Amino acid sequence: MPVYRLELAYDGSGFRGYARQSGLRTVQGELERALGTYLKTEVTTAVAGRTDAGVHAAGQVVSFSHDDVLDTERFRRGLDGLLGAEVSVLSVTDAEEGFNARFSATWRRYRYLMDTSRAADPLTRAFVWHVGRSLDITAMEQAGQAFLGEHDFSSFCRSVEGKSNLRRVTELSLVEEGKSLSIWIQANAFCQQMVRSIVGYLFDVGRGFSDGALVEEVIASGDRSRVATVAPPHGLTLWAVGYE
Amino acid sequence: MPVYRLELAYDGSGFRGYARQSGLRTVQGELERALGTYLKTEVTTAVAGRTDAGVHAAGQVVSFSHDDVLDTERFRRGLDGLLGAEVSVLSVTDAEEGFNARFSATWRRYRYLMDTSRAADPLTRAFVWHVGRSLDITAMEQAGQAFLGEHDFSSFCRSVEGKSNLRRVTELSLVEEGKSLSIWIQANAFCQQMVRSIVGYLFDVGRGFSDGALVEEVIASGDRSRVATVAPPHGLTLWAVGYE
Repeated sequence: MPVYRLELAYDGSGFRGYARQSGLRTVQGELERALGTYLKTEVTTAVAGRTDAGVHAAGQVVSFSHDDVLDTERFRRGLDGLLGAEVSVLSVTDAEEGFNARFSATWRRYRYLMDTSRAADPLTRAFVWHVGRSLDITAMEQAGQAFLGEHDFSSFCRSVEGKSNLRRVTELSLVEEGKSLSIWIQANAFCQQMVRSIVGYLFDVGRGFSDGALVEEVIASGDRSRVATVAPPHGLTLWAVGYE
Repeated sequence: MPVYRLELAYDGSGFRGYARQSGLRTVQGELERALGTYLKTEVTTAVAGRTDAGVHAAGQVVSFSHDDVLDTERFRRGLDGLLGAEVSVLSVTDAEEGFNARFSATWRRYRYLMDTSRAADPLTRAFVWHVGRSLDITAMEQAGQAFLGEHDFSSFCRSVEGKSNLRRVTELSLVEEGKSLSIWIQANAFCQQMVRSIVGYLFDVGRGFSDGALVEEVIASGDRSRVATVAPPHGLTLWAVGYE
């Protein structure tokens, strides 16, 4: 059976997250409904990143297998048209046999956007967290280095019983452009709320509420209660996913 | 009487333009209502750019005079809070006697954003025109040069009986970043629909529908019917206003 790989972008504002949930409006629910309409059969998809409610994507990857050979560009346009303005189908490609958007992925990259201006920018308010105050970026950068490498991130995740929170963070960098601050985080994978908890902690360091020197200890403790702030979802965008 | 100068940013999507219109939701209407609530008196404002319905602003300038001396930062915060997320009060400053946001302005600068990607970006869709096709940027740049200088822009304006359409364009530049194309236009002032008509014409040149070599002739003709395309308002943002 041919396997197809979709690349999606979406505005998560109006969705209860990516993953299908009965009775709720989710990206996966809308996508599979559109796929069903277009392909006239029920389709089950795999996804690289199960983004939380309100989180966006610029390069989400989804895969599914299907009996028929599709004209990929025609299919992309048709599916894109069925999905409306909140979800865009950026590309559709033929994938190799056995490709699975979730299990074949080797890294995920997220961007978190903050605005330190006094007044918020009305045009970007859907995808920028307006913190409205200056932050100690140097302290945040120093604290951020402690997240690099392989750790049990139980302090920074909403744990799921019986599942490991071991992850390997390969990049954490802060980029300032005027009053805009981007935090880029890449890892082999993320557990739930991990990016927003890391960003929330860095925000607390930046405003002098948490001590950046304690990050290693907080990670080692595995104690979720030591991370007070989870950054709001609307500043977060799943940027890209990597495959071998 | 003290004169105050406000700098505003707004998402024009939900407004019927800047200028007050009885019974319609406009930026000026909302602003003057908020000013009335805060200052407990009726306030009439002057504005640098009367943006059309759906057009945004990043640096709109408004002025008004008021009997009392205000704590400008406290007033900014209070007014900003009364205006909700679609309008931000970026700054409030004491202006010189006789300052008028409209008549004291010496230039206005607009940005028009286009996206030439196949698929639209859901996050920026409120302020980017998704044209969804490649354009001949070189031809657009060449055609754009003909707009520079002082001209009667009747072909590129919705004329108002008895009012001159003579304007002086001091900058027209195109900036490509990947699939994003910004068109920057600066002039002493603009007549109605002038930026969107110029952008529409350049778009027609870029897609090979209009001949860029004819721009001078089209300007000289003063014939509005020769400009077929008016770019949609949501791609346009009043960027900044200059004063002596």
